Amino acid sequence: MPGGICRRKFAKVMALIVQKYGGTSVGNTDRIKNVASRVAKYHANGDKIVVVVSAMSGVTDNLIKLAKDIMPLPSEREMDVLLATGEQTTIALLAIALHAIGIQAVSLTGAQAGIVTDGVHTKAKIQNISPKTVHEFLDLGNIVIVAGFQGQTIEGQITTLGRGGSDLTAIALAAALKADLCQIYTDVDGVYTADPRIVKDAKKLAEVSYDEMLELASLGAKVMQSRSVEFAKKFGVVFEVRSSLNENPGTIVKEETKSMEGVVVRGVSLDKNQAKITLVGVPDKPGVAARIFKALGDATVNVDMIVQNISHGTGTPATDISFTLDKPDLLKAQKVIDSLKKEIAFGKVITSESIGKLSIVGVGMKSHTGVAGKMFETLANEGVNIEMISTSEIKISVVIELAKGEQAMKAIHAAFIG
Amino acid sequence: MPGGICRRKFAKVMALIVQKYGGTSVGNTDRIKNVASRVAKYHANGDKIVVVVSAMSGVTDNLIKLAKDIMPLPSEREMDVLLATGEQTTIALLAIALHAIGIQAVSLTGAQAGIVTDGVHTKAKIQNISPKTVHEFLDLGNIVIVAGFQGQTIEGQITTLGRGGSDLTAIALAAALKADLCQIYTDVDGVYTADPRIVKDAKKLAEVSYDEMLELASLGAKVMQSRSVEFAKKFGVVFEVRSSLNENPGTIVKEETKSMEGVVVRGVSLDKNQAKITLVGVPDKPGVAARIFKALGDATVNVDMIVQNISHGTGTPATDISFTLDKPDLLKAQKVIDSLKKEIAFGKVITSESIGKLSIVGVGMKSHTGVAGKMFETLANEGVNIEMISTSEIKISVVIELAKGEQAMKAIHAAFIG
Repeated sequence: MPGGICRRKFAKVMALIVQKYGGTSVGNTDRIKNVASRVAKYHANGDKIVVVVSAMSGVTDNLIKLAKDIMPLPSEREMDVLLATGEQTTIALLAIALHAIGIQAVSLTGAQAGIVTDGVHTKAKIQNISPKTVHEFLDLGNIVIVAGFQGQTIEGQITTLGRGGSDLTAIALAAALKADLCQIYTDVDGVYTADPRIVKDAKKLAEVSYDEMLELASLGAKVMQSRSVEFAKKFGVVFEVRSSLNENPGTIVKEETKSMEGVVVRGVSLDKNQAKITLVGVPDKPGVAARIFKALGDATVNVDMIVQNISHGTGTPATDISFTLDKPDLLKAQKVIDSLKKEIAFGKVITSESIGKLSIVGVGMKSHTGVAGKMFETLANEGVNIEMISTSEIKISVVIELAKGEQAMKAIHAAFIG
Repeated sequence: MPGGICRRKFAKVMALIVQKYGGTSVGNTDRIKNVASRVAKYHANGDKIVVVVSAMSGVTDNLIKLAKDIMPLPSEREMDVLLATGEQTTIALLAIALHAIGIQAVSLTGAQAGIVTDGVHTKAKIQNISPKTVHEFLDLGNIVIVAGFQGQTIEGQITTLGRGGSDLTAIALAAALKADLCQIYTDVDGVYTADPRIVKDAKKLAEVSYDEMLELASLGAKVMQSRSVEFAKKFGVVFEVRSSLNENPGTIVKEETKSMEGVVVRGVSLDKNQAKITLVGVPDKPGVAARIFKALGDATVNVDMIVQNISHGTGTPATDISFTLDKPDLLKAQKVIDSLKKEIAFGKVITSESIGKLSIVGVGMKSHTGVAGKMFETLANEGVNIEMISTSEIKISVVIELAKGEQAMKAIHAAFIG
């Protein structure tokens, strides 16, 4: 745990802490009571506490089912009115659970907590938070419980923030309240150097930079949605990812520091949920790639890595284009590609679902050389063939054979992290 | 159906109608679809429609159960936050059901609809309605669906209105919007001259005055809570009680008219849920009755009829005091009486649960003489003994033996209504 946070705690200086608990943590009345006990411990330290909660697990799905029983594509405005009840139920129950153990608490809906969003229903963006009411209730000695995932427009329409919305509520509230700490409680106890179910030696990271967290999030480490991390980065909100099931310290996510740069590789991830498409013999002239990926985008196929090599062959210059995408999108993508066949005279199309994307992430790569070389050498020693390579400033990803994915991941973890 | 309402409908002048549907009418998605179809018919006439709905039946009880799982006596503020989700769920689903049949509709919570209440949680009183938002959405061509039973304080706290709250929302909205008609849909198709399950000849009333409705409501005709009728009377809101299960015209509740006075008895009711306590030999001096009924009131015993006769006996003047109360309160009342025994030296206490309260109601009584005489004579002819009598300007109630209650009710109905 970093020094700053320990210092505040041990010196008993009153801190303002925002805690967020997800749907599983508040999944029934017993779990809500457990969350109340956990919150109570922090309260006993003399800290001011704001708690952000999600809907009880299963509640949101039930509400969606009710709506779809009536109409397959219900209005997004009305879905927001409907789904917002989920978190509103949890805030009241958690307030009651705190009262039951003698602690003063009040619940606030997103609207009541001053969370103002744009009017894009089901995926609204937070525009502004007026924390006046939250501050008033805190100053009266209350734990303030805020409904995650929801807000209202300036005209008073109920909105919801979409996937990962409760994390976003917590981080945005922490920014608006100038909180000393924001804790995201989840069912994992932090961010690991690799998936501990695969790599036995995986270590929990004490801290990680926003950029590293973003890369890890987009690489399939399911801890948090990228948008919450981006928001935290933008407003400099330091947050901690930790477990609601134990007392272990979690992982602090913060701005990159000098000391972080000493660590070359922060984490290793393996994404098994990707497929690959290769178009062989694509005419090498301007606008062709744009046409392909525009068409895929229009069909909402989310393309990840794209690799194009130099022209080859004789006669008309042609190239091969490979790209990866989410496995469930493969069929949709193939249809798009087929529809382009007449317009763009490419050769054959090769698809593969048996690939894995192995990545290493670390801000230290910026100032270290030879990282890629060491990665490729390690893979070669394991007999793993590299099919595609893609790099960013703080990340190297390679596409390899799925069957060798876990073996490769363990080797890379051992080589860089130990 | 009274002329005024028919005229508006047939002349196709655009009217503003407030409709209220209770929990049973919206109890599942199929029933919500039925309500949508019903609303659509009115909309097809070109009328502007505001629909007030309750929580789906069972939902409120489930929420209460969740809260009581956590704490037996949960905070009233938090219960309001919790229970308000029930109606919020229904409004969204009904809006979606209207969209599904191609009708433009928006939902509004009590707060969004501008319903401002005092801060007495779980039984708040409506202080004011700002109908601006409702008007705006109506003017845009929407059916506006408002969550019943709920509002917010001027400070933005969520409140609920207590039992019968959705009826009150409908009537108060009708007043604020200057609606042409307010329809309360329920599972009975109007107000009857007597309970049709007991009196086969009972007739549905085409219209009834507020005062008659109030007396009938307080006499056990379970159609509506008194407070909603009082509110309607205060603001002159004409409303119709009718069934959501058929197309029958209901009963119009309105200010008393000259023509109503021609009818002496509007309805006959029998309340079987009362008990009687008689205190024999109560010292006849100032303050004694006050002491007794103050103590009962403090214990939240709801006393209905009170009869005290002139002093009798020798020595210290003493009297007998009898009163009726709800049967479930009998034990509680007896404890209160016992606790007063030392302070007020009364004689014995007689209680009875085998009584019925038979009442006749009608604004015509004001201008007709001999009504009481005819009632008592009819009962005498049936061999029914009268234990207590209580009268108001438009009502005569008698307490009789429970076993003869239904026989007496039929005889009185036949004598006055036929």
